[in-house]
Amino acid sequence: MKALYKARPAPGAELRQVDIPKIGPTDMLVRVQSAAICGTDNHIYDWTPWAQARVKPPMIFGHEFAGEVVEVGSEVRGFAVGDMVAAETHIPDLQCMQCRTGRQHTCENMTIIGVHTDGAFAEYAVLPQACAWKLPPETDPDLGAILEPIGVAANGLFKDRIGGLSVAIIGCGPIGLFGAQMALACGARQLFVTDINEYRLDMARSIVPEAVALNPSKEDVEGIVREATEGRGLDVVIELSGHPAGIAQAFNLLAKGGRISLVGLPSQPVTLELTNAIIYREAVVYGSTGRIMWDTWYTVDALLKANKFDPTQVITHRFPLEQYDEALQLTRSANAGKVILKP
Amino acid sequence: MKALYKARPAPGAELRQVDIPKIGPTDMLVRVQSAAICGTDNHIYDWTPWAQARVKPPMIFGHEFAGEVVEVGSEVRGFAVGDMVAAETHIPDLQCMQCRTGRQHTCENMTIIGVHTDGAFAEYAVLPQACAWKLPPETDPDLGAILEPIGVAANGLFKDRIGGLSVAIIGCGPIGLFGAQMALACGARQLFVTDINEYRLDMARSIVPEAVALNPSKEDVEGIVREATEGRGLDVVIELSGHPAGIAQAFNLLAKGGRISLVGLPSQPVTLELTNAIIYREAVVYGSTGRIMWDTWYTVDALLKANKFDPTQVITHRFPLEQYDEALQLTRSANAGKVILKP
Amino acid sequence: MKALYKARPAPGAELRQVDIPKIGPTDMLVRVQSAAICGTDNHIYDWTPWAQARVKPPMIFGHEFAGEVVEVGSEVRGFAVGDMVAAETHIPDLQCMQCRTGRQHTCENMTIIGVHTDGAFAEYAVLPQACAWKLPPETDPDLGAILEPIGVAANGLFKDRIGGLSVAIIGCGPIGLFGAQMALACGARQLFVTDINEYRLDMARSIVPEAVALNPSKEDVEGIVREATEGRGLDVVIELSGHPAGIAQAFNLLAKGGRISLVGLPSQPVTLELTNAIIYREAVVYGSTGRIMWDTWYTVDALLKANKFDPTQVITHRFPLEQYDEALQLTRSANAGKVILKP
Amino acid sequence: MKALYKARPAPGAELRQVDIPKIGPTDMLVRVQSAAICGTDNHIYDWTPWAQARVKPPMIFGHEFAGEVVEVGSEVRGFAVGDMVAAETHIPDLQCMQCRTGRQHTCENMTIIGVHTDGAFAEYAVLPQACAWKLPPETDPDLGAILEPIGVAANGLFKDRIGGLSVAIIGCGPIGLFGAQMALACGARQLFVTDINEYRLDMARSIVPEAVALNPSKEDVEGIVREATEGRGLDVVIELSGHPAGIAQAFNLLAKGGRISLVGLPSQPVTLELTNAIIYREAVVYGSTGRIMWDTWYTVDALLKANKFDPTQVITHRFPLEQYDEALQLTRSANAGKVILKP
Repeated sequence: MKALYKARPAPGAELRQVDIPKIGPTDMLVRVQSAAICGTDNHIYDWTPWAQARVKPPMIFGHEFAGEVVEVGSEVRGFAVGDMVAAETHIPDLQCMQCRTGRQHTCENMTIIGVHTDGAFAEYAVLPQACAWKLPPETDPDLGAILEPIGVAANGLFKDRIGGLSVAIIGCGPIGLFGAQMALACGARQLFVTDINEYRLDMARSIVPEAVALNPSKEDVEGIVREATEGRGLDVVIELSGHPAGIAQAFNLLAKGGRISLVGLPSQPVTLELTNAIIYREAVVYGSTGRIMWDTWYTVDALLKANKFDPTQVITHRFPLEQYDEALQLTRSANAGKVILKP
Repeated sequence: MKALYKARPAPGAELRQVDIPKIGPTDMLVRVQSAAICGTDNHIYDWTPWAQARVKPPMIFGHEFAGEVVEVGSEVRGFAVGDMVAAETHIPDLQCMQCRTGRQHTCENMTIIGVHTDGAFAEYAVLPQACAWKLPPETDPDLGAILEPIGVAANGLFKDRIGGLSVAIIGCGPIGLFGAQMALACGARQLFVTDINEYRLDMARSIVPEAVALNPSKEDVEGIVREATEGRGLDVVIELSGHPAGIAQAFNLLAKGGRISLVGLPSQPVTLELTNAIIYREAVVYGSTGRIMWDTWYTVDALLKANKFDPTQVITHRFPLEQYDEALQLTRSANAGKVILKP
Repeated sequence: MKALYKARPAPGAELRQVDIPKIGPTDMLVRVQSAAICGTDNHIYDWTPWAQARVKPPMIFGHEFAGEVVEVGSEVRGFAVGDMVAAETHIPDLQCMQCRTGRQHTCENMTIIGVHTDGAFAEYAVLPQACAWKLPPETDPDLGAILEPIGVAANGLFKDRIGGLSVAIIGCGPIGLFGAQMALACGARQLFVTDINEYRLDMARSIVPEAVALNPSKEDVEGIVREATEGRGLDVVIELSGHPAGIAQAFNLLAKGGRISLVGLPSQPVTLELTNAIIYREAVVYGSTGRIMWDTWYTVDALLKANKFDPTQVITHRFPLEQYDEALQLTRSANAGKVILKP
Repeated sequence: MKALYKARPAPGAELRQVDIPKIGPTDMLVRVQSAAICGTDNHIYDWTPWAQARVKPPMIFGHEFAGEVVEVGSEVRGFAVGDMVAAETHIPDLQCMQCRTGRQHTCENMTIIGVHTDGAFAEYAVLPQACAWKLPPETDPDLGAILEPIGVAANGLFKDRIGGLSVAIIGCGPIGLFGAQMALACGARQLFVTDINEYRLDMARSIVPEAVALNPSKEDVEGIVREATEGRGLDVVIELSGHPAGIAQAFNLLAKGGRISLVGLPSQPVTLELTNAIIYREAVVYGSTGRIMWDTWYTVDALLKANKFDPTQVITHRFPLEQYDEALQLTRSANAGKVILKP
């Protein structure tokens, strides 16, 4: 099969013919119909310190995907050849305390598809049963491929209720846009979205026109939010940027008793003013990673089934796998929404 | 002033000229601009056992109201003559453990406006500061008058999250219709509403057309719900009928792990099958009364400010106070939505 | 092997030599070292309507057990021959929405060991991996055998916090006594326990002397509780009796905002006064069944590891399996705590 | 009356005769029987930047106190001359959204007794009704005076359940010791307490001998905790030091899904590694300030009434008000538990 292959511990990758992978008894083999590009994939391609610490070439990367089951392992239950599936990318060991208490997504021995194992920028990929989400047969594979990042947004957003609350989302990449759509679908009273990239802000203005889209490099975000909230600040902030400035600003936007979900991953320690921003306010800070298995998936599924939002609006480009280089460059420029590769 | 006066412990009431009431140091006097009729008012008029156990004529009834402050007591803070206010009808003592832990609405020594004290079917009414909710000056008094029953629905609905959940509302009176509107505004995935009265079901079909409106006297509600939920049942049920049959059916609609809010007040003990309906399902049952002071009011206010729903659609009739008899009869027939008296 | 065998759909059972059971690929075979008698076992022996509706003889019953793994199926991970294990008795299908959202204990397709499958009153029993809880090698098998009913108490008790709250436990059978011990271990301010059986009350007086032990057939439980709580009532009630009178009394003991866990299974519908007991009080009612897998087990394990309570005090009798008849009769008399069979 | 008077915006204070303060209509006058010294009092005495930013001399400081009501304002309800009271020190405005939703302790317009108003290091002090907690007549005034800091510990500790959880308390000053006592009273499985001051560690070893007392300047706290928790880390951490090193260590001790309450106030921004410590772990961070009014007070009261812990063990010194200088120096040395002044 053809696959986007990272042969060496160095920047780059190449399209190559490789053997179709073999599955273990608890796995299924999936013919990949759609694979979305995540920021992680650029880390791996660019061979950043994040990637150097985790990835062991040679390997195939890519992890947001959907496709058709073409083979099932001997111990697999509840899935059959011909099923359409989407991939949860966190592989739990199913044996640690986290896994045994409904928190597989923070397994003590987590591995990740396309990071620690071969991934989905290929014609076929191995999917452990523990990571398989069955889709109705008629599902658009591109929608299937983006369920994973939609779930990232949902996990951050739904730590508690949204109805009637004022919300900000820091970062208007695909996850931010999905989050904005779901916040409105679930009754957010006011919604602010911020990004320093005008392409992304324009996407936000188009997809969630009810939101106030702000560029913190040009506008006084804190002042605007305070004025719009009669000085109170916001009930909910979802931090997706992972940048020190974005995180610090996120904390400053909170109302007394507000909550913030930290989702974006800072690459270095962040300096925070805790006394006024968190302690005197009795704010609550939630670390948020991945998707709760499978609560988050069921919640997203319910909102989609009820037509509460259309996440495919966030997909801006689709490329055949062969054009991986153009596709990856596009996502690095940030002048794109979600970009899909079709193997 | 003119007032709808219940002179004797017997059915009926009469319009009469009475003195404008005197306020105490913690009260304000309100010129009533709009007063809505609640089922309780019919209990008082009809002199049912419920009323006989609580009401001590002579008195003026009516409790859902809004109007303009015309006088403030010496100890009142934060309100002034000319302010527009809506009434919370539960008068807390502010001294018991309930009141001192954010639960004034279940005060150990609760009294109720228009039940234990003189009420609002009159040109003027006394409003304790502890029960006053300030409205923006331009507020439609009819909207102000119905905030109290909207809050009843909100308190029942928002015991936990709504986004992405399947919901049923048992009873399509005004509270049920408000609840249906708010459930949809906050991201309910599926919504079922039931009533045995076709007028009310038609109101539901018109105001919340996304909902499935069912008449349990004609349709197999449980079968329809089970089929629509792949056999699971519903995540959330709001019981507003207070009828033994409605309550029993409400329990039967629940999914495993579902929740039910009991809001409607049964006039006699109810026989329930607990083992399968509650225990094996690990369902959660919430008693729900009045409105959390003032969380519920803030939540409703936020949803209204964001134009998430328009509760004035539920108002079907407005009468001058003089036509109280026609207005009360109309509400008793159940062939009406919310009915407003204008003193 | 020898086993307590129920050959026919009629009262009774008999000790018999049968084949050692064969395990499937996801099972393990356990040499039973200790098996405790549960009320369910008497239902099966006596062939009550409850049993007739569920049990299909011929079969072996008994489900609260611990022992040593002597064989593991080909697909079993994380367990090995020689491990000591206790049994969770609810067999989840691991594929339904309940199982996939951390609620295996309310699986949509639940089966139960010793009810729907062959059980543990035998020298060997089959334990699905999904139901196995590993014990430290040195664990007393009798303690292992009672973890399951301890978990029933813990699940009912820990629906929310206990520290500083006033608690009543309705029913002083083994589950009630375990619950009383754990309520005290976790900071209950006041503890009331009730039973109509004096033997059990005496056990309570001995094992949890800090508790107020009351016999509702002789004492004014509601009056005593109201007086001891300055009229408020109780924050938490755990209902274990399953009797209509016990359930009705349990509701009457609640404070405003209190919570009740229904654990005991009434064999017929129960008539409840809801308006005052639940709705006006904004009480919360939790259905509670089995044990949350595996949160409840971890919580019990933590309390045991910290020596916060000693549940083996509740074990009053141990018999060889051959004396099953005497053992079962003793549990039926209610003049016993937990009774253990040693195969 | 005599009072410890801070005449000028500079270090120091002096004992002086001043007029007995006049009360407003919503206040009561209290004859101070016991006043405890808080770290805040040293900030004011020493005239640190914290104090310079808040305190406006001339003024009387001191805020943790109990005593007898000798006069009540005209609008005071529920308190009478002769009542014994303890002081909540956060004065809420009772009109903002925070105050109207059960969160007076984070009032938008908070003032603090002994910081923004005259305080309790004097023979008499003014106590607003909104800050008065009635004590049984026979209460030890020293116990009354320390209820406020006990409540600080309780608010941080009881953000969620404690029973069965592993807990660390960073900082063994009086609040830390109270917290350690309450954690054990409410079923903590394991308890670690840390301080760099050996006097305080010795107090911890004496008062909560079940706890593991560690000095982070001498011992590998993280290593010891990881080993004691099988590598998992801790379920709950209460951060009381306010020091950057203490806060950073506190985050590092957390288990996946653990929670941390930030109570100690850092005087400058703190640099934190968020990705691994918070986000990948899905940890929850609670800002915690003051005491929830009045939930926290009721919880502490319940634990005290049940004799679950004896906080007066933490009081090490009592001085007449005249010896304020010795008392304040002692608290600054950290070689003391709680120090009481008797006016």
